[in-house]
Amino acid sequence: MYSEEAHEEFRVEPVTALPAVGEPGTVVWVDVQGLGDAKKILALGEHFGIHRLALEDVVNTHQRPKLEPYEDHYFLVMRMPLDDDALHTEQLSIFLGRGFVLTFQEFPGDCLEPVRKRLRDAKNRIRREGSDYLAYSIMDAVLDAFFPRLDEISDALDALESEHFTHPDPATPQRLHTLRRELLTIRRAVSPFREAVNAFIRDTGDDISDYTRLHLRDCHDHTYQILDLVDTQREIATGLLDVHLSLVSNRMNEIMKVLTIIATLFIPLTFLAGVYGMNFDPDTSPWNMPELRLYFGYPVIVIIMLGVIAAELFAFWRLGWLGKPRQ
Amino acid sequence: MYSEEAHEEFRVEPVTALPAVGEPGTVVWVDVQGLGDAKKILALGEHFGIHRLALEDVVNTHQRPKLEPYEDHYFLVMRMPLDDDALHTEQLSIFLGRGFVLTFQEFPGDCLEPVRKRLRDAKNRIRREGSDYLAYSIMDAVLDAFFPRLDEISDALDALESEHFTHPDPATPQRLHTLRRELLTIRRAVSPFREAVNAFIRDTGDDISDYTRLHLRDCHDHTYQILDLVDTQREIATGLLDVHLSLVSNRMNEIMKVLTIIATLFIPLTFLAGVYGMNFDPDTSPWNMPELRLYFGYPVIVIIMLGVIAAELFAFWRLGWLGKPRQ
Amino acid sequence: MYSEEAHEEFRVEPVTALPAVGEPGTVVWVDVQGLGDAKKILALGEHFGIHRLALEDVVNTHQRPKLEPYEDHYFLVMRMPLDDDALHTEQLSIFLGRGFVLTFQEFPGDCLEPVRKRLRDAKNRIRREGSDYLAYSIMDAVLDAFFPRLDEISDALDALESEHFTHPDPATPQRLHTLRRELLTIRRAVSPFREAVNAFIRDTGDDISDYTRLHLRDCHDHTYQILDLVDTQREIATGLLDVHLSLVSNRMNEIMKVLTIIATLFIPLTFLAGVYGMNFDPDTSPWNMPELRLYFGYPVIVIIMLGVIAAELFAFWRLGWLGKPRQ
Amino acid sequence: MYSEEAHEEFRVEPVTALPAVGEPGTVVWVDVQGLGDAKKILALGEHFGIHRLALEDVVNTHQRPKLEPYEDHYFLVMRMPLDDDALHTEQLSIFLGRGFVLTFQEFPGDCLEPVRKRLRDAKNRIRREGSDYLAYSIMDAVLDAFFPRLDEISDALDALESEHFTHPDPATPQRLHTLRRELLTIRRAVSPFREAVNAFIRDTGDDISDYTRLHLRDCHDHTYQILDLVDTQREIATGLLDVHLSLVSNRMNEIMKVLTIIATLFIPLTFLAGVYGMNFDPDTSPWNMPELRLYFGYPVIVIIMLGVIAAELFAFWRLGWLGKPRQ
Amino acid sequence: MYSEEAHEEFRVEPVTALPAVGEPGTVVWVDVQGLGDAKKILALGEHFGIHRLALEDVVNTHQRPKLEPYEDHYFLVMRMPLDDDALHTEQLSIFLGRGFVLTFQEFPGDCLEPVRKRLRDAKNRIRREGSDYLAYSIMDAVLDAFFPRLDEISDALDALESEHFTHPDPATPQRLHTLRRELLTIRRAVSPFREAVNAFIRDTGDDISDYTRLHLRDCHDHTYQILDLVDTQREIATGLLDVHLSLVSNRMNEIMKVLTIIATLFIPLTFLAGVYGMNFDPDTSPWNMPELRLYFGYPVIVIIMLGVIAAELFAFWRLGWLGKPRQ
Repeated sequence: MYSEEAHEEFRVEPVTALPAVGEPGTVVWVDVQGLGDAKKILALGEHFGIHRLALEDVVNTHQRPKLEPYEDHYFLVMRMPLDDDALHTEQLSIFLGRGFVLTFQEFPGDCLEPVRKRLRDAKNRIRREGSDYLAYSIMDAVLDAFFPRLDEISDALDALESEHFTHPDPATPQRLHTLRRELLTIRRAVSPFREAVNAFIRDTGDDISDYTRLHLRDCHDHTYQILDLVDTQREIATGLLDVHLSLVSNRMNEIMKVLTIIATLFIPLTFLAGVYGMNFDPDTSPWNMPELRLYFGYPVIVIIMLGVIAAELFAFWRLGWLGKPRQ
Repeated sequence: MYSEEAHEEFRVEPVTALPAVGEPGTVVWVDVQGLGDAKKILALGEHFGIHRLALEDVVNTHQRPKLEPYEDHYFLVMRMPLDDDALHTEQLSIFLGRGFVLTFQEFPGDCLEPVRKRLRDAKNRIRREGSDYLAYSIMDAVLDAFFPRLDEISDALDALESEHFTHPDPATPQRLHTLRRELLTIRRAVSPFREAVNAFIRDTGDDISDYTRLHLRDCHDHTYQILDLVDTQREIATGLLDVHLSLVSNRMNEIMKVLTIIATLFIPLTFLAGVYGMNFDPDTSPWNMPELRLYFGYPVIVIIMLGVIAAELFAFWRLGWLGKPRQ
Repeated sequence: MYSEEAHEEFRVEPVTALPAVGEPGTVVWVDVQGLGDAKKILALGEHFGIHRLALEDVVNTHQRPKLEPYEDHYFLVMRMPLDDDALHTEQLSIFLGRGFVLTFQEFPGDCLEPVRKRLRDAKNRIRREGSDYLAYSIMDAVLDAFFPRLDEISDALDALESEHFTHPDPATPQRLHTLRRELLTIRRAVSPFREAVNAFIRDTGDDISDYTRLHLRDCHDHTYQILDLVDTQREIATGLLDVHLSLVSNRMNEIMKVLTIIATLFIPLTFLAGVYGMNFDPDTSPWNMPELRLYFGYPVIVIIMLGVIAAELFAFWRLGWLGKPRQ
Repeated sequence: MYSEEAHEEFRVEPVTALPAVGEPGTVVWVDVQGLGDAKKILALGEHFGIHRLALEDVVNTHQRPKLEPYEDHYFLVMRMPLDDDALHTEQLSIFLGRGFVLTFQEFPGDCLEPVRKRLRDAKNRIRREGSDYLAYSIMDAVLDAFFPRLDEISDALDALESEHFTHPDPATPQRLHTLRRELLTIRRAVSPFREAVNAFIRDTGDDISDYTRLHLRDCHDHTYQILDLVDTQREIATGLLDVHLSLVSNRMNEIMKVLTIIATLFIPLTFLAGVYGMNFDPDTSPWNMPELRLYFGYPVIVIIMLGVIAAELFAFWRLGWLGKPRQ
Repeated sequence: MYSEEAHEEFRVEPVTALPAVGEPGTVVWVDVQGLGDAKKILALGEHFGIHRLALEDVVNTHQRPKLEPYEDHYFLVMRMPLDDDALHTEQLSIFLGRGFVLTFQEFPGDCLEPVRKRLRDAKNRIRREGSDYLAYSIMDAVLDAFFPRLDEISDALDALESEHFTHPDPATPQRLHTLRRELLTIRRAVSPFREAVNAFIRDTGDDISDYTRLHLRDCHDHTYQILDLVDTQREIATGLLDVHLSLVSNRMNEIMKVLTIIATLFIPLTFLAGVYGMNFDPDTSPWNMPELRLYFGYPVIVIIMLGVIAAELFAFWRLGWLGKPRQ
């Protein structure tokens, strides 16, 4: 509860203890963390005159971000990044009415601290504006919370990229897959929200001050910026996967080349050695391996072997296989 | 047949036994399961004044989901998940007129039990609303039936994902292919239905109460949610296939590396051993393998072999091949 | 030529023998099969008052499906499946005027037999409707002719799919490529035609009866159904190709594994056997292979060999290579 | 310069010698080939009252096809295929004013010969129409020049396709890449031109006769036809690349299978032969290779070897490796 | 500061020393390079009456290009290529008001020198036009600065392409990845800017002269040209990656073929040689390798070996493996 002059923060336990809404210049913000207590939510809804269908959407936490105008309030669903789980988001339901803002979060802990700080600061403009500006501030704070996450992903991609070209790591595809899932999570949270902000700017008429509307346009820009970053980084991730796969296949090529060179160099030589290791008895026939008793038999066979090696090396060089093995 | 006060369920055998339509406050719902009896369908159509072209579409069960407005009724085609076959859907044709709802299913067994339960509950709001609300309830029940299927697919993908990184399974691509076909089936069923719901909200004028229209918007949200989930999971499935392929190719790399290391270590040694296994006769010439009679011949050759091994291991280490084999 | 009462079919040879057009209640349908005789086409065009530019499009048989309104007739181009060539379609040009329908086909033989049958049936509604309904019937018959083709493709894909998982066939990619080309052919024939039907419904004003327009909407639905099926089957074909490629690479993996296991098991053993096959003379030096004369030399070397095998098998088991070879 | 009665072709050297524009019924067409002489272009521009910004676009030859309306003329940029270079196009700038058409080509030699022929033919309709029809004829001639190129590409793809399935060629990917670049070139030339033609039809009001407009619609159809063909052929090219890659990997599979079968058949046998080639001295110990002196030693070992081969062949048959090697 | 008669350039140190704005015919251009000094920026903003929200966007340098109309000025954000880093761009914020242009760059050094030169030239048209034309000139200069970069990328791709077909380089995928990232950077800078230019042309009413608007349309054309080039080159890069991968896999094929041919030629021969190297004692049994004492034993075995080689070569030739090894 705050007005230009005063700001109070308290923990409401019985819902009946809620302050009345509607004093001019005073805005009531009720922030519910955790959706376990269905009764309290209903009581709250009644207190502020919230439509039943909207309350159902609060509890059913798989809503897409959207804006729903009701007769005397707006219902806005956002998805908020979680502190410790980059692959999921929590649902934040915002009700904006004359003189009040009502927010429901799935779990305790959020990214709205900057808004609270500004509310505590008596000189901050937020204290002089109405509930619409508060709603805007919350939306903007949630969007801003995606940027550090995107920066982390961008850093991770850059790290993968530079490290990768020097030493490809077989875990790269999994890491890229995880990063892409995170990007997908952000895209799913922000993409439909963009339309919601648009509707907020377009369809709210006089319920929102021009000042807030100007800031909402900024908010709209932010959603574009986020989606832009998401798309760019997804393209980079895809590109990196391609590069990884081709590095792996180059490496395989190198390995095959080494194996082939070594094996084809020695296989014929081993055969030659095997031939002169045969035990045909030269004594029984002049046809049986007379080479073994030639005066220069051994040197000649060594020279033949060297010749085979030279011929093979020449063939490999012609095939372009003797470049420096790349790592 | 139900009104606010009464609710009757009975099995109509001769079509002529159908109750008259049009008592104010009373809604007649006729649910036909199985399309085998063309005559009965024609009789039913005549009874409720259904257009012939629409009846043809009921029997031709490959319709895309659509809404067709006729003079005094609406004709809506949906696709409903089957209990035991995730790759196909059955066609559900809904006729909505003043005071009646007529549904045709291809096969017995459906996902409309929740609607029937609510109809039996005298206090349920559905009993006080008209046939438009009943039609909405049926539509919503069908859409809701897709969510458990999507959850199953999501669980299957998560299972594949976690199990996969520890132990890639060659059957993964087939499982992913099947999951993708299921997602395709859902997308084909829901995507054109979204437009039909839209047309239902937009074009029905006074035929539908504001209350129902509000709930239809919810229904519209559900189609978006489903398509959103389908798209996300298809992207995850595609990503997993990429990861699988690169794991397979990493594994191939490891295998090749082991083969190459072992083979290139021993091939030259085996050749050396082969050379000194040749039977050139040292007695016939001093040039014929005098090494065999050297005092340190054997130790020297063993040392040479160890040297070759050391040199090769050094080369492999330089090529970065001696990292711990990854699994 | 038909009216409600009469129906005549005859082969017009001299174009001048054509019946006059314009008797109320009578429709003339002239069907030209083959476009070789340019003079006859011109004479026909003159007879029915066809625009010259449209006649040029009739002969130039690479038109995209389209609707062109002329002052006193409509010109519609469709592509019709050929009986024996799934990769090509023939051009069907339809001229619709008051009291006449004029069709030009590239080749004899078509899929319009069902229309002719209905014309011959005196009780069929088609006999009571005007030329617009005849034009619709022709369009619908052509579209219907695509469905059996799509069913064939779908069956072929299903066959490939089930057979494939048990026994991948190297010819699969080619068969998939051919099926995809057929789907492409259907898509190219139907996709622009959808817009033409749309224009037909939208822009024809009073030239078309409400009854025909209702049926044209059905026709429009059919184009959607066809394109839907084409897209789904193209996705399935793409998915199957991915599955095929990964099966092939799994299989390669298995082959490599078998080779590597066999080769690495025996290569060191063969080396050991080779060492003790060397002919160093133990008589000339106590250093030269004294093992050969040890009392337990042979058993010890056999035990060493068994030890090497056991160690290697243990290493392979640790690397997870000894699972049952999958087929 | 031509009217219905007369047609003159001459080579204008000094720009000042240009005929006056504006005689009713007479059209002046100036065709400039080569853009080297900036002064002459400026003089021409002045003579016909061309806007300076448009003249700049003439010289800057990287324009996208577009239509720019100026106060008293239209400026149209097209891209024209080159005779000898399928990967590039030249820029054709067309100025259409009352009574004149001014064209600028980058290089001598073009595809406008058919237009010139028709101009020379006194009976051709083009002689009776205005400059708008001449402009249309030029546009149509340029578009027509893309069709033979597309036919060539289509033939090349068909050739690759049929030849490929019997004998895959490693140069296929490069040829496909070149064909795709050519398709890309055509798409880049025609795709924006489609919009220009559209604007020409829509925005030119009375400056263009209905007769020309009717023909322009034909021209518009041609752009669609070209883009359609380009897209189809790009899909076929992509499909062919997939087929090629999978043929290559099938072939690798075959090669690996042959290597593995031969190697694994002989490696154990060679080991066995190696064992009995060891020189352990049977004289020094009854444990040292007593097999060598067994009566049936050699036949037994030969039988063992045959048994190993049979066992391996059986294993390969079970693994399904002994199918006929496919080529 | 310039008017038609005069042009002054000076370095403003204290912001208070800025010349007054608003003298008719005089335009003040203040160019701030570097955004370190927040105070100065605020002072500048105050001097020219800039909206606070816009100033915030100046400092927050991750804006997407956009046009924001404020009451008495326009705020335009562009991204400008950096001299030495093709993967990033700097933000250029342009404020256009009556009689002044205010630009903020992130870093010193820019691509606006051509504009400055034209300003210094007393005869240049820019001196006679207003601040809107100056703003246009800056925008155009920035866009023009992307063209040399695109030319570099195009040259790099052409170089890769020609060099690649003769000698594929394993670093190609990385180079292609880098080129694609550069193209991505340009696309991200120019794509949203196109919409901004569009808004500039459409929404600025009388604030911009017709002359400037005509030139802005040119500017709009340039954005299309850039995006066109970017898309074409990205497609070429993707195509080149495909070609590279298939060249690599062809090469692997060649290597495998050589290995397989050599290995399978010699493995059976080596086995045969091994057999006759066994030391079974022919003295102890007539069954023990009697071949060794046959008169033609050795020649026969040599002939058998040659026969095996011939049979294998024939098999390879049948399999089509003996084509000239392609490089």
